[in-house]
Amino acid sequence: MTPRGGPPYVAVVGPNDATQRELDQAEAIGEGLARAGAVLVCGGLGGVMHAAARGSERAGGTSIGILPGDDRDPGSPHLSVAISTGMGETRNAVIVRTSDAVIAISGEFGTLSEVAFALKLGKPVVGLGTWELSKRGRPVEAIHRVETPEEAVAEAIRLARPS
Amino acid sequence: MTPRGGPPYVAVVGPNDATQRELDQAEAIGEGLARAGAVLVCGGLGGVMHAAARGSERAGGTSIGILPGDDRDPGSPHLSVAISTGMGETRNAVIVRTSDAVIAISGEFGTLSEVAFALKLGKPVVGLGTWELSKRGRPVEAIHRVETPEEAVAEAIRLARPS
Amino acid sequence: MTPRGGPPYVAVVGPNDATQRELDQAEAIGEGLARAGAVLVCGGLGGVMHAAARGSERAGGTSIGILPGDDRDPGSPHLSVAISTGMGETRNAVIVRTSDAVIAISGEFGTLSEVAFALKLGKPVVGLGTWELSKRGRPVEAIHRVETPEEAVAEAIRLARPS
Amino acid sequence: MTPRGGPPYVAVVGPNDATQRELDQAEAIGEGLARAGAVLVCGGLGGVMHAAARGSERAGGTSIGILPGDDRDPGSPHLSVAISTGMGETRNAVIVRTSDAVIAISGEFGTLSEVAFALKLGKPVVGLGTWELSKRGRPVEAIHRVETPEEAVAEAIRLARPS
Repeated sequence: MTPRGGPPYVAVVGPNDATQRELDQAEAIGEGLARAGAVLVCGGLGGVMHAAARGSERAGGTSIGILPGDDRDPGSPHLSVAISTGMGETRNAVIVRTSDAVIAISGEFGTLSEVAFALKLGKPVVGLGTWELSKRGRPVEAIHRVETPEEAVAEAIRLARPS
Repeated sequence: MTPRGGPPYVAVVGPNDATQRELDQAEAIGEGLARAGAVLVCGGLGGVMHAAARGSERAGGTSIGILPGDDRDPGSPHLSVAISTGMGETRNAVIVRTSDAVIAISGEFGTLSEVAFALKLGKPVVGLGTWELSKRGRPVEAIHRVETPEEAVAEAIRLARPS
Repeated sequence: MTPRGGPPYVAVVGPNDATQRELDQAEAIGEGLARAGAVLVCGGLGGVMHAAARGSERAGGTSIGILPGDDRDPGSPHLSVAISTGMGETRNAVIVRTSDAVIAISGEFGTLSEVAFALKLGKPVVGLGTWELSKRGRPVEAIHRVETPEEAVAEAIRLARPS
Repeated sequence: MTPRGGPPYVAVVGPNDATQRELDQAEAIGEGLARAGAVLVCGGLGGVMHAAARGSERAGGTSIGILPGDDRDPGSPHLSVAISTGMGETRNAVIVRTSDAVIAISGEFGTLSEVAFALKLGKPVVGLGTWELSKRGRPVEAIHRVETPEEAVAEAIRLARPS
């Protein structure tokens, strides 16, 4: 939940091993979130996480990396702060828990776990080329799908502030 | 990882609010796992979790409920042991971590988070009417799909023992 | 909290690297808890944990090992069930959370963290040669001190069942 | 571990329900850590945590609150960022894990759990009127004891940078 008067926290989740297109999207989203006054939350490592932190930094934003390991050392140097949880992939749940909305960029199974946790907790998920879900052949349209980084930021900010 | 010589641990995950058909499937799977000598791991609450524990108990099996809350009180009375983690939905990651294979029955977003965690950790997932995954319109066939509880048990036992 | 009608769960905490005397005490306590119908909870590794599980097993009891690592392999073979949390030392909090009373045998700083968590959560702690606490030179008598394994079991069972 | 080139992270732990003297000490320590270029880590709630965050803010520092609950709302408004872990008191382990040194001010059992975790993980603990530890009547001098907030900051910074 966004505390009264505080900035929204938006998670950006996606692959550690990303394509150039995904990195460009993540960086644009990190920059857009910072311009919109949002705090970026991410897993703190490479790929999409690093690119989003770099984008946030360029626009003077605040970013938080929530790391799986026992020390802060592998955290992206673009992060404002890094948390070493020592909890392994279980930390994915903390990334989602502390965020008011989640933007998923493409992604592998770790990203899917973050999307699923967010949906379980009733938090809005915005997707850019990410997982599609269905059950018994019928699509489950739980993710707000967008086509560009600009739309991803706008949609996440809109949904994170229920007003 | 199954320790040398110990029984396999198989998680059964699925909805708290289940249909009669899902409950029957869960109970048959719990019973089948116990007959196969496997330890059942589940989230410890109602619905599919309760039914699987009941099936395990009927066949003299061992079952573990890993609960989200601060005390063991809401745990199914059919469980051999209950763990209260006090970690909320984050406990889903512990259910998967301690298991050698996961059987997913239908399920909502919590179940999806468990499936995703298992795939992320490289653990086999057997699905009975559960989530279907795709990316950019192409199915991602990461779940071993079966049609009956008997197949689910056989497949989980087979996959949990790589040998 | 002990669920209505279920057995009490009692944690036995102490050093991985233990003296013969501590091992003998732990084994006697594990055996005594099993005879009293209590479920043993421990950290699942060697030393005091292994000895307590062996004692419980000898008396036909149930024991749970809550392990720090990513797999169940290092768990004592005397455990009824093992949980691999993948959470490192953070799992100490889960050991305490799931127990209705804690017996501390001697112990190093890990044991102290378990004692402190139990006291924080308002759970009774029984101590056999364990840490002594004071503040500003004045003893803080928060631990129920006993001299023998038999007293430890009796006191833990008495305190875990407030009735 | 302090990453190469990054600032040290220092946890300040102590009671939620604090005396005026403890609050003044915490605020001075928060301010001193910020002037020394350290990032403050705390439990994010009231009392000593709130005061330390206020001190850090006054000196233009960065502070992180790692909260026990499911949302960021109860976090001190003086924090730079807040993390809602949803893990209850288990979050104490994360506070310590992410820090390079811990300063304990007086404190109750929650503080003792943080001190114990830090010692278990081999992290330096600086104490200002906090717990005294002994075993079998002999003091265990594991905490670096200081008398003033200035000494606490100097000692924590010195120990957090092993150089």
